[in-house]
Amino acid sequence: MAVTIKDVARKANVSISTVSRVINDSKPVSDEIRQRVLKVIEELGYTPNPVARSLVMKKSQLIGVIVPNISNYFIGEMLNGVEEIGKMYNYDILLCNSYGELEQELKYLSLLKSKQVEGIIFMTWNLKKEHKEFLEKIDIPVVMINRNTSDINIPSVCIDHFGAAYEMTNYLINKGHKKIALIRTGIGNDAFGVDQYKGYTKALKEHNIEIDESLIKNGDFKLEKAYDSVVEMIKNNNLPTAIFATSDYMAIGAMNALIDNGFKVPDDVSVVGFNDIKLASMYRPKLTTIKQPIYDIGAVAIRIIIKKIKGEEEDKTLFVLPHELIERDSCRSLV
Amino acid sequence: MAVTIKDVARKANVSISTVSRVINDSKPVSDEIRQRVLKVIEELGYTPNPVARSLVMKKSQLIGVIVPNISNYFIGEMLNGVEEIGKMYNYDILLCNSYGELEQELKYLSLLKSKQVEGIIFMTWNLKKEHKEFLEKIDIPVVMINRNTSDINIPSVCIDHFGAAYEMTNYLINKGHKKIALIRTGIGNDAFGVDQYKGYTKALKEHNIEIDESLIKNGDFKLEKAYDSVVEMIKNNNLPTAIFATSDYMAIGAMNALIDNGFKVPDDVSVVGFNDIKLASMYRPKLTTIKQPIYDIGAVAIRIIIKKIKGEEEDKTLFVLPHELIERDSCRSLV
Repeated sequence: MAVTIKDVARKANVSISTVSRVINDSKPVSDEIRQRVLKVIEELGYTPNPVARSLVMKKSQLIGVIVPNISNYFIGEMLNGVEEIGKMYNYDILLCNSYGELEQELKYLSLLKSKQVEGIIFMTWNLKKEHKEFLEKIDIPVVMINRNTSDINIPSVCIDHFGAAYEMTNYLINKGHKKIALIRTGIGNDAFGVDQYKGYTKALKEHNIEIDESLIKNGDFKLEKAYDSVVEMIKNNNLPTAIFATSDYMAIGAMNALIDNGFKVPDDVSVVGFNDIKLASMYRPKLTTIKQPIYDIGAVAIRIIIKKIKGEEEDKTLFVLPHELIERDSCRSLV
Repeated sequence: MAVTIKDVARKANVSISTVSRVINDSKPVSDEIRQRVLKVIEELGYTPNPVARSLVMKKSQLIGVIVPNISNYFIGEMLNGVEEIGKMYNYDILLCNSYGELEQELKYLSLLKSKQVEGIIFMTWNLKKEHKEFLEKIDIPVVMINRNTSDINIPSVCIDHFGAAYEMTNYLINKGHKKIALIRTGIGNDAFGVDQYKGYTKALKEHNIEIDESLIKNGDFKLEKAYDSVVEMIKNNNLPTAIFATSDYMAIGAMNALIDNGFKVPDDVSVVGFNDIKLASMYRPKLTTIKQPIYDIGAVAIRIIIKKIKGEEEDKTLFVLPHELIERDSCRSLV
């Protein structure tokens, strides 16, 4: 039979309201009584009723996080920022893995709300009408990651994807590359894949390099798809001198395709990535890439939630963090 | 003001119990009324009270999972097994990341229980007295991963770590290696690191190869620590012909140390790993390793929980899944 607050009060020989005060740390209780109550709670294995408790406390100190793929390297690193800053402010995190499926995402949004989280960090590959409808109604703070949310008034934390892709493409051009493949991701308007594409094409155009559609592939965030794209370029005798993959994971797929077919990176073909996940410096050759401040993205996201919980409103919805081009060993100069 | 079940009933022009039936799918309701109630629920943005609901339903269809590090590659892949099988049985998963800190682990165990999960998959680096005391009292099913839990009667899913390490060491010996370094993990008795060590030493002894303590390092699951161990061997002119790291992640650290110091893998030194995380076949050279059925470990863990929830008891506490030695490109034969 479940142990109740009455059992604790009886055994500790105090009133129910005293037990409640100890549990909720709400009003002063003498040290001696506190110790006695805590001891009885432990002995009886009492778990406070969470609803009663949150009614008293008026808050759960819980933040929910929904991500599309827990085993994605970017997401794992981002969550470290969420968790550490959450902990600093005494929030616990409930995580949900949606596999990017709309139905599961909507289910988890409802579930977390019903579990009394005070705010939600919501990450999805694809921000749909159904999400927007739900998010417009929800009465707790929500923050998104790397999405363009300007039409729904939900804050989003990201970097300048256009600027970063423009910078990387210029970097390659300045190293003497003219035939530069792009293995891209995200075709949707809210996903910044379009911005990256625009940054790439702008840099080429400014240097009077023609856009060659046969060198632009959709890698769809997948290592295997990037691998296959490069194998196809090899087969078609259409290898560029440099490959710009807009995720490190895809860049590694591109490098593996080159290495497995007898090409050397960067001696024969240069490869650069995007994100700077840990893998980028773990692989050999170490990958030249755009560093997203992945940890900070998570940290800022939860910081915004906590500020909103405390009623501190922010004016802006888009929080753009700085990126950086990290030169390592996977790119060679032709000049 | 929060919308209640009364508001829904009034607006849909039905009784409260009819709304309850629709929400809980408990008794037959005509399609027309169901549609009407669901429409009102959506219009009003009504969220059923989770406690009232779980009292009616008597179950939450939720399983909690606590892991020490969400960005660990093994754990990410294991969680895929948990989630997919959970979904198949209509369970949702609440995930908690403990950073392996005792206090946080105990907090999450209590929190998940208070959030009415029906069972918990608990993964920790270090099973302590405090965990055991908590787990002995808890009244919902708990399953652990890769721990020796024989003393607390909690099921655990694992592989035969002794047998796997013995097999891998024999494999290296049969390839002509005699000077074989071990970069190991987990010194605690419950952690299988001891079993792996015993498998390694048994194979050496059976072939009359002396155990060389200068070649046995604790890599502590860390890539950097494995890297440093190998750099130290190089500096001391004490390089073996083969390095057996008991995690792929550490094996990659070992390979990087060799490559960065001008050695070739496997031409100069062979390196083998343990686990077969995705990284093992992503790196070049592809890593020869022991394949743990990582996805299956997660799948079996949640299967045990679901069986226990349904009252189907299992006799055994240790669920040992098969492993496999996967030959790739990081090991060379000397014979």
